[in-house]
This record gives sequence, structure tokens and C-alpha cells, in this order.
Amino acid sequence: MKVKAVLSQKPVSGVESISAQETMGELVTRLKERRVGALVVTSGDNALAGVISERDVVRALATEGEVCLRSPVSRYMTSEVSTTTPEDDTVNVLERMTAGRFRHMPVMDKGQLVGVISIGDVVKVRIEALQRENAAMEEFIRS
Amino acid sequence: MKVKAVLSQKPVSGVESISAQETMGELVTRLKERRVGALVVTSGDNALAGVISERDVVRALATEGEVCLRSPVSRYMTSEVSTTTPEDDTVNVLERMTAGRFRHMPVMDKGQLVGVISIGDVVKVRIEALQRENAAMEEFIRS
Repeated sequence: MKVKAVLSQKPVSGVESISAQETMGELVTRLKERRVGALVVTSGDNALAGVISERDVVRALATEGEVCLRSPVSRYMTSEVSTTTPEDDTVNVLERMTAGRFRHMPVMDKGQLVGVISIGDVVKVRIEALQRENAAMEEFIRS
Repeated sequence: MKVKAVLSQKPVSGVESISAQETMGELVTRLKERRVGALVVTSGDNALAGVISERDVVRALATEGEVCLRSPVSRYMTSEVSTTTPEDDTVNVLERMTAGRFRHMPVMDKGQLVGVISIGDVVKVRIEALQRENAAMEEFIRS
């Protein structure tokens, strides 16, 4: 299954993002409201600047203490971000997430950010596909 | 594959836990040091009291602000925790995690906490098992 098929199934359309100069305090409010574990970070011109996650919040607090809540997200985000495209296969996305140990990947189409795909999304699709293939082969063997 | 087989493959043995009266500030340090997303919470007599995750940290900060870092983890933990046993099947664990939307499950053996299993652990096992079954059936069909 392609990335675009997964994105089209997600209940919320549009991209969950925060701008690089917003604070970590604003981030925690946004993460709670949206019920997500990470947000894409955009720079002034709406370009992809990075990804920031609840894990980054915990690390910033452990390292700098509560003062981090008044600092911009750009200070703690991951700026070297692996991206994918709507036409990419989710098997490939899952392999890259597992190898790189990250849980979210921005989806880019012709330089524009069009969505975010999570490891939960791709794992679900992968298990369902393998189960379907399995059931089809079992049926074939039986008949 | 059974839960005990997954636990035996994990690099760190022993259970990552924090006691209920420790603070959220202590929790963030522990999460960072251990490189985990959640810890089991134990009460005075080393009994299971709950689970606390990086998501709980974000929610506490968003709701109460930085003062939460000086409050005990017992205030923010999930205390109604689903548990599993070493003899349970990981397919069953994955279904319960997906249905309940949680990522970590304490493993209990005769009332004693013996480990924690994460959704990452069980997903890996499940995908590998389905791929093996698939390959075996493909081989069977070809021959």
C-alpha cells in the first residue's frame, strides 16, 4: 500500500505543525489538544524545518529543567528529518523507521508538506497486508 | 511467540520502575537516562501501582504547568493498568494494546512484576512470524 492511501484514511486532514519560534510550553499544549506524539516544525516561509516529539520535551526538561518551556522548539527539534512521498510504499517507510528508530515521517509532494505518517499507521497496514496474503495462500493450498 | 520469549531477548534485564512518591522531575531524568518512553510505578511494598509515560508528562505540563514537576508521579500515572503474564501469547498482547490504545504492559508472574513489554516488541515479533509463515507457504506452493 502506498503512503497516499494511508493518509487518505486518517480522520484529521491537513498537517499538524508548529512554527520554529513557538515555545516548548506552546508545544505541550498543542500536543495535548491534538492528541498526537509529535508535530512537524515549519520555518517562516512554511518550509519543513524539523520534527519535535514528546520525547524531545522529556529530554529538554531532564537536561535544562523547566526553563526550556520558554525556549523555542527550534532548539530541541530534530532538524535532519527523513521524509517520504505520497507514492512511496509503506513497506519501505516501515523499514526506514525501524532502522532509524523514529516514529513519524513528514510526507512531501513537490517540495510541499502534505502530511505526516506515523509508525502506528504503517504497522497496521503491514500486518493487515501480511494477514491477507497468508489467508489467500492458505485458501489456495486447501483448494 | 510467548511473552517470556520476548522478554528474554531484551538487552536490559530487570524491570524499569519508579516509586509512586517520586516526582515528575525525577521521572523525566529517569526516562532520559534509561532511554524509555514509560516506567512502571511501584508502591511502598514494591507492588504494581501504575504506569507513567512521556505522554503523561506532556499532559501534566499542559494542564498544570511546570509546577507538576514537583508533584509525585502517583498524581499523573495510569493506575488502571492492563497486565499480561510470561505464558501469554504476543498476538493476544498486541490485540489488547491496539484496542486499548496503550504502548506498554507490565508482565506479572504470581503477583510479582517480572518485566514490561512494549508495542514495539510485540509488533516486531508479529511481523516476523507472519513473514515466516508467508515464506513457508510460498515455498510449499512453488514445490
